[in-house]
Amino acid sequence: MVGLGPAGRDWLTPQAMAVLAAADDIVGYAPYVDRLPRNPRQQRHGSDNRAEAQRAEFALDLALRGRRVAVVSSGDPGVFAMASVVLEAAAGDERFADVPVDVVPGITAAQAVASQAGAPLGHDYVVLSLSDRLKPWEVIARRLEAAAAGDFAIAIYNPASASRRQQLADARELLLAHRDPGTPVVVGRAVGTSEQSVTVTTLDGLDPDQVDMQWLINVGSSQTRILRGGTVITPRRYPD
Amino acid sequence: MVGLGPAGRDWLTPQAMAVLAAADDIVGYAPYVDRLPRNPRQQRHGSDNRAEAQRAEFALDLALRGRRVAVVSSGDPGVFAMASVVLEAAAGDERFADVPVDVVPGITAAQAVASQAGAPLGHDYVVLSLSDRLKPWEVIARRLEAAAAGDFAIAIYNPASASRRQQLADARELLLAHRDPGTPVVVGRAVGTSEQSVTVTTLDGLDPDQVDMQWLINVGSSQTRILRGGTVITPRRYPD
Repeated sequence: MVGLGPAGRDWLTPQAMAVLAAADDIVGYAPYVDRLPRNPRQQRHGSDNRAEAQRAEFALDLALRGRRVAVVSSGDPGVFAMASVVLEAAAGDERFADVPVDVVPGITAAQAVASQAGAPLGHDYVVLSLSDRLKPWEVIARRLEAAAAGDFAIAIYNPASASRRQQLADARELLLAHRDPGTPVVVGRAVGTSEQSVTVTTLDGLDPDQVDMQWLINVGSSQTRILRGGTVITPRRYPD
Repeated sequence: MVGLGPAGRDWLTPQAMAVLAAADDIVGYAPYVDRLPRNPRQQRHGSDNRAEAQRAEFALDLALRGRRVAVVSSGDPGVFAMASVVLEAAAGDERFADVPVDVVPGITAAQAVASQAGAPLGHDYVVLSLSDRLKPWEVIARRLEAAAAGDFAIAIYNPASASRRQQLADARELLLAHRDPGTPVVVGRAVGTSEQSVTVTTLDGLDPDQVDMQWLINVGSSQTRILRGGTVITPRRYPD
């Protein structure tokens, strides 16, 4: 499982490059596979976003036939991505007992967005997906409450999709019950691409109606500040 | 501010390599500066771990004199590292108003350790430092309680130092009040180096007396499991 980073060769590690270069097969969500330059020696298997378990078994089947398979994820395969799915599939079927499976980490979207805004995740933080496709909303709400109670900065993944339009509005309401309306918020979109946009707003000013599935949102803690020039930081020092 | 990743060239991004190659001055905690190959064209300024604010001002002063300065951090400069310190120093002094400051992200220690153990951070998680050098223990305890209440996986940074020996024992006690004693725990040390060690244990089995300052600990959520072969995953699916 190979992490491609958020976008671009600049954030692709040498380890990931080497593993991709050595692969016979590239397996993954089609837009991620399409990011990689074509190699006539390689088979490419782009798939739909949702069929994770089938994709994992497909990759393991290829490996069982002696192929070197790279299952690619955007960002880090260990963060809301394919690593846990493939490892679970590998452990769940005796046929795959001898297939070696390794995880190649990558720069995450949360870090990439943070780097473009300053250091909004410079102190303790939570990484949370708002998607209720694989977990009930009650778990998400409980985790948002906990993140608020702990005064963590929060990196929000999957704030919306074509069919999920309400989660970010609900999350914002929930956080506003605990946190100052002026809490800095960073919205990153397509970071590392030519379409990159990074905007700095506040919890109050965040407009959930504008959300699309490419957003990655960093919400500040009580200590997060917007500096001169619009840079956002969460200091490492927490006052007594 | 340049993230070197946890260790080694394999996890150093092309962006970081390019910025380091173009730098006139390398500034940072001495062991991080020492990781880089010497370049006779560059000045190296290794310093003590604690003097963050002075180091930031020193780097900004060099930049003001027209030097290209790389302030290096292990992992990601935006995660418990120098980015927020330098940005705060730059914004706090009118002299530095025109010094351009950029953040180059890196693979974090939490991700690197996770990748060597499977995918223990495969679902929502907290990133938390146990150091009470810059924040009161009450804040740390409140955040551990919140992480437990939210059933997050937890990546623990700075579990100990030469003088801080009690924090991990206290954190373990606190988490055991909420979480199953059999909760999987991954302890990583010096990951990415020839001295790498990654061990899998449980919350109950974790021995805080063995801790050293190079440990990075991933504590599982209620859903984290140890698979056949010792691989640790936190699945993306959360049961109703």
